[in-house]
Amino acid sequence: MQGKIITISRQCGSGGHSIGSELAKRLDVPFYDREIIEMAAKESGFHQGFVEEKEEHMNSSLLFNIARYASYGGRGRYEDYQPLQDQLYFAQVKVIKELAGKGPCVIVGRCADYILRDRKDVLNIFIHADMAFKKKHCMERGQFSEGDNTEDRIRRRDKFRADHYQYYTDRKWGDSFHYHLCLDSSAFGIEGCVSIIEDACRGMHPAL
Amino acid sequence: MQGKIITISRQCGSGGHSIGSELAKRLDVPFYDREIIEMAAKESGFHQGFVEEKEEHMNSSLLFNIARYASYGGRGRYEDYQPLQDQLYFAQVKVIKELAGKGPCVIVGRCADYILRDRKDVLNIFIHADMAFKKKHCMERGQFSEGDNTEDRIRRRDKFRADHYQYYTDRKWGDSFHYHLCLDSSAFGIEGCVSIIEDACRGMHPAL
Repeated sequence: MQGKIITISRQCGSGGHSIGSELAKRLDVPFYDREIIEMAAKESGFHQGFVEEKEEHMNSSLLFNIARYASYGGRGRYEDYQPLQDQLYFAQVKVIKELAGKGPCVIVGRCADYILRDRKDVLNIFIHADMAFKKKHCMERGQFSEGDNTEDRIRRRDKFRADHYQYYTDRKWGDSFHYHLCLDSSAFGIEGCVSIIEDACRGMHPAL
Repeated sequence: MQGKIITISRQCGSGGHSIGSELAKRLDVPFYDREIIEMAAKESGFHQGFVEEKEEHMNSSLLFNIARYASYGGRGRYEDYQPLQDQLYFAQVKVIKELAGKGPCVIVGRCADYILRDRKDVLNIFIHADMAFKKKHCMERGQFSEGDNTEDRIRRRDKFRADHYQYYTDRKWGDSFHYHLCLDSSAFGIEGCVSIIEDACRGMHPAL
């Protein structure tokens, strides 16, 4: 297990955060989820609250990109017109590469599997679950307020994550071929997933 | 673990057959892979060798279906013009449902995860691997002759499996959301995958 960086991609409400956090504790390595936002805020110079808000609501980047560049008549360097979403993404890329360079850790979300694709010491995990499990998990964690249409919000958030991943990686989010291990947390439970990942790390092929 | 039916879908050369076979031995339950062909042959009335050949080379079923039916002027019962591919598929559906009805077992391939989707006692696994692993595994098992373009043949076989699965299930083959557990056998090795699946079965959520 020593020397492994574990990335966890996850559906909203699947318990990926809890699984990653518990796994990091058991392995005694640093855990990064929303901490990356704070670091990316510092990196990019934006206010943290602003980055947090943008992180969950950014989309249509490509069209926005083109429209913004065109609105300036396409003059000058493209980088000078780089939209917020791209600025934040590249700040996160820098932060994630730096964290991975420091040694073993668990990183949740933010295309970390793709960003670290050239490293040989990374184990990529994807966690998904059925809607009943995701809804229950979100309600228990107080992730959405009473009266919210929880199912709709979960679907929208997953749609955003899938689109975001596809846009920056040109890969399909949740396609098993891109991960070493994919788990249905509604089948195994949070604790069960942590144990399976721990077992998997121990039994890993030496070549990886 | 008692009472579970395990379906294993797998890329060509990923070791899915070996993993399933070893798993069945450890769990002391029946194992079905190509045995299903023999049973489907009996069920459909076709010769086994003919079924085996058709199983790896059938495609374009929909177009063939329509063209064949149309060539008879669309008269009579559609079932009477059902093409070979569909006749064999439905024979396999019947065989797989009967096998599952007999109790715990391991079934490899043949859309078994989809065919048994209404049962609550099924654990669905998908095994994939990188091309280097798949090539090595196929050569070691003598699956292709010397001089064959092994990579091309592996790709063609996986393409056929993906198309076949998509046609009969309207699902994307290898999309993690349809399986409880997806494993990269080039990361964990054959033995490692067997152990992870065993561990996963033990840690399964009681609700499944």
